[in-house]
Amino acid sequence: MVNEIQFVEQIRQQFPVRSPVATGIGDDGAVLKNADGSENVVVTDMLLDGVHFDLSDVSAELVGRKAVAVNLSDLAAMGCRPTAAFVSIAVPKLAQSEQLLTELYRGIQGLSEQFDFTVAGGDTNLWNGPFAINVCMTGEPFRGRCHLRSGAKPGDVLLVTGALGGSLATGRHLSFEPRLNESRWLTDRFKVHAMMDISDGLAIDLHRMMDASGSGAILTAADIPVHTDVSFDLSPEYRVRASLSDGEDFELLIAMSPESATAAQQSRRAGSEVQLTAVGHVTTERGCRMIDRSGDIHDLPVMGWQHG
Amino acid sequence: MVNEIQFVEQIRQQFPVRSPVATGIGDDGAVLKNADGSENVVVTDMLLDGVHFDLSDVSAELVGRKAVAVNLSDLAAMGCRPTAAFVSIAVPKLAQSEQLLTELYRGIQGLSEQFDFTVAGGDTNLWNGPFAINVCMTGEPFRGRCHLRSGAKPGDVLLVTGALGGSLATGRHLSFEPRLNESRWLTDRFKVHAMMDISDGLAIDLHRMMDASGSGAILTAADIPVHTDVSFDLSPEYRVRASLSDGEDFELLIAMSPESATAAQQSRRAGSEVQLTAVGHVTTERGCRMIDRSGDIHDLPVMGWQHG
Repeated sequence: MVNEIQFVEQIRQQFPVRSPVATGIGDDGAVLKNADGSENVVVTDMLLDGVHFDLSDVSAELVGRKAVAVNLSDLAAMGCRPTAAFVSIAVPKLAQSEQLLTELYRGIQGLSEQFDFTVAGGDTNLWNGPFAINVCMTGEPFRGRCHLRSGAKPGDVLLVTGALGGSLATGRHLSFEPRLNESRWLTDRFKVHAMMDISDGLAIDLHRMMDASGSGAILTAADIPVHTDVSFDLSPEYRVRASLSDGEDFELLIAMSPESATAAQQSRRAGSEVQLTAVGHVTTERGCRMIDRSGDIHDLPVMGWQHG
Repeated sequence: MVNEIQFVEQIRQQFPVRSPVATGIGDDGAVLKNADGSENVVVTDMLLDGVHFDLSDVSAELVGRKAVAVNLSDLAAMGCRPTAAFVSIAVPKLAQSEQLLTELYRGIQGLSEQFDFTVAGGDTNLWNGPFAINVCMTGEPFRGRCHLRSGAKPGDVLLVTGALGGSLATGRHLSFEPRLNESRWLTDRFKVHAMMDISDGLAIDLHRMMDASGSGAILTAADIPVHTDVSFDLSPEYRVRASLSDGEDFELLIAMSPESATAAQQSRRAGSEVQLTAVGHVTTERGCRMIDRSGDIHDLPVMGWQHG
């Protein structure tokens, strides 16, 4: 297949943004403007048996949960509360379809009660193929405007929520908490310049944010919060590498002014479970680099999970 | 699998409608209310190779077109213009995926230019399963409010656009024109009480509209516009039966006051390509019936295409 970047660029050219769409392909979600200037956001993700999970290993409940959670993570990245989910499912004819659907929707229901949205539509079909699920969700900004990837400014501090790496190996990718509460907390109190979720690994997603913002970035390796899911048997260098490239972290990457970043970190410390860690800053010079533990600066390779 | 009606009822109970959703599962689309009282609509449909089409017989261009057209038909039914499409695709690894995607998006592009919406997001994955596509679309009412299935009133005249039957047998289901122009024309000029698209056959869809409206209906067999795609070798009775139950017509079923219906039919005659035909009326008594060609009244069976 044509590579993902070329393919997305082709679709963007074929389908120019038209009002009421304000932001189309290329961010975590699309932004639509209402007549009164308010914004609605739409996100979507398709998960496939044998690609994103394996139904012979994983319960349908966790699959349903994850299919919605990845969309909630996109909404968190946009600074939005979820409003509704639309769930389309293809179920193998041979499966215990009734039980599978009951379990799947139980996983969705847990998140719908936790984050206060409903399932407002969908489509369910039996077929001869493997299990597939597409979830499309709508959301609205916690405050006025959505956050985009493209707003990072030179001098901004780059922050991440939580810790990175080891998600796929340990199964954390099936039960992660989408960072809606953290997104709301940040959005309510501070000025966020840019935000996205780290789905394919910090390295590749940082490149995406900087490309969208027309800026560059420098990370400090020693500051990156490596998840305890990454084996301590690895060398410090390999642990950092895992945190940069394992993918499926579903943490937030945030760009804020140094003053806002300091204020956010200080007020965050008071008893919060989810850390907020400064990992680098935005530069005028394009490209992404990293200061390693010996103080040397290297280019940060585009490494991580590339969607098929 | 649990039957469709039970399954949908189960999901509705599991996910009660929550603001800003005003209308959830059970209509052609979901209605979300904005803070200023304006409405947005979301529709979605999943089409699967081997179920809804067969990629060995049909071009990817027609498949892409149909996957969007069925959603446009739902938007037309709600009295809405399309604003954006979100396209998720699972492509078999062995396929000529680049060519397939190019053709598929060519089919989508035709409709996007005709009906003035953009593709604002989506997801594309390779896998070991057959080809699958989910399209989710957003829309906004042509005028103020959406049309629902539930607004038909006793005494209303029931109208249909176009002609019914023979769509699957002739392949018309792959190239039909979604009735957005007709929906807009009706919505701009007349008061529509209820509207839906005829996707599974007039008989079953009429039952759905009447169940949602808490009313009944009587059709007049002789008035039903049978499509020329239905073989003239069939007896008149069988041709009517085909028009009631073949499905995939994607015409509109409309309930309006007798005065509005007459006015709409009269102003429609002036050179319009798509007919508007009165086929019956809404009754206080529940249930759907039909007056056959000999003047006898029978119960109208729930016949037609039941989704899997």
